[in-house]
Amino acid sequence: MFSPSVYNGFMPISARNKLRGTIEEVELGDVMAHVVVRVGENLIESAITRRSADELKLKKGDTVFAVIKATEVMIQKD
Amino acid sequence: MFSPSVYNGFMPISARNKLRGTIEEVELGDVMAHVVVRVGENLIESAITRRSADELKLKKGDTVFAVIKATEVMIQKD
Amino acid sequence: MFSPSVYNGFMPISARNKLRGTIEEVELGDVMAHVVVRVGENLIESAITRRSADELKLKKGDTVFAVIKATEVMIQKD
Amino acid sequence: MFSPSVYNGFMPISARNKLRGTIEEVELGDVMAHVVVRVGENLIESAITRRSADELKLKKGDTVFAVIKATEVMIQKD
Amino acid sequence: MFSPSVYNGFMPISARNKLRGTIEEVELGDVMAHVVVRVGENLIESAITRRSADELKLKKGDTVFAVIKATEVMIQKD
Amino acid sequence: MFSPSVYNGFMPISARNKLRGTIEEVELGDVMAHVVVRVGENLIESAITRRSADELKLKKGDTVFAVIKATEVMIQKD
Repeated sequence: MFSPSVYNGFMPISARNKLRGTIEEVELGDVMAHVVVRVGENLIESAITRRSADELKLKKGDTVFAVIKATEVMIQKD
Repeated sequence: MFSPSVYNGFMPISARNKLRGTIEEVELGDVMAHVVVRVGENLIESAITRRSADELKLKKGDTVFAVIKATEVMIQKD
Repeated sequence: MFSPSVYNGFMPISARNKLRGTIEEVELGDVMAHVVVRVGENLIESAITRRSADELKLKKGDTVFAVIKATEVMIQKD
Repeated sequence: MFSPSVYNGFMPISARNKLRGTIEEVELGDVMAHVVVRVGENLIESAITRRSADELKLKKGDTVFAVIKATEVMIQKD
Repeated sequence: MFSPSVYNGFMPISARNKLRGTIEEVELGDVMAHVVVRVGENLIESAITRRSADELKLKKGDTVFAVIKATEVMIQKD
Repeated sequence: MFSPSVYNGFMPISARNKLRGTIEEVELGDVMAHVVVRVGENLIESAITRRSADELKLKKGDTVFAVIKATEVMIQKD
């Protein structure tokens, strides 16, 4: 079984969710940035600091992981 | 284009990420519960209160959404 | 007793806090928006993405719920 | 107008939401604790570490604030 | 041993991490603000609402605490 | 100047805070674990899933980073 926390072999992190995808859009604001990542059939949206978006040079087409701590995930019944 | 925040037609929520999947596992602890949801090729893991897991009667096989606020999503370069 | 997680009858969510109130103010920024909701005697303030504020067409006077995951709530002694 | 961030006169904090209430219940788990606070007509539920619940000696009847950062508050349309 | 949750003697909070430092930079955006705090050899960066930055009159040189709930801290192996 | 988001050269992450330290204590609960990390003069406390603590084999003496997203950091005036 795929084990999320050891996927990144070099420096594994406790965050249990690392979803691999491709950046569809980066919108830079003054302090924050909005990043949209396609992961399979889903779009994952992220609000990070503008500084991180700049330092990571995030741009459309980049392969990235959306990383999410398990305590931040809610469950909604369908 | 799929618009996440209006997917739930009745009472749309600002959380931008709602990933539809199937519960693979529910582990009940004393105060918290660990829930694993299969979403396409990914496993999404969630730590919620035991009380919510009980009240929602979450169990293997349930169709659910994993709901995540955009400000909780980090981006990691591959 | 009022059971928060089943209040929304259609698609109950694990987030344990859903506070019903009325929007007092929406301030739109470039990437983020600041929303103030009156809940009884309290003002609840929220920072969400600009996109969600736009898609939900949030405006002064709207009846909304402020939704908060229990793991995000701290306790301070008086 | 009530200004949340300066309410605590001694050491004001940037968290914009400080809801004053009374503890209704404290459930101690091994690592986490579940705390229920009555705030007006609402119940606010919090998941904090067991250690904080012990150190703060939280118990039914205590007057406390539920403190929540604005970036953790979602908005759901009614 | 230093006990974080009772450090602030007046109104102790359950958040277990309170790191004392000095503000190095405040960048004000429209809705959000970016604050950099030097804590020993580390720089701690924070994204708070513009309103809190204004109300607290945060500026370079101020002595502050960076306050972080334990559930928000991830662990990465070196 | 030290640039946090590119410190991890292999797969840099947008989380702006990565504090290097040594684990002082790991307490395993049923679903969650409590980890204490010494970072300079401070103790950083983290609540992660039990599964991550197990998979990362976290133990006293390990060198780790405490990783924190900027949106999770509050500022309190001294």
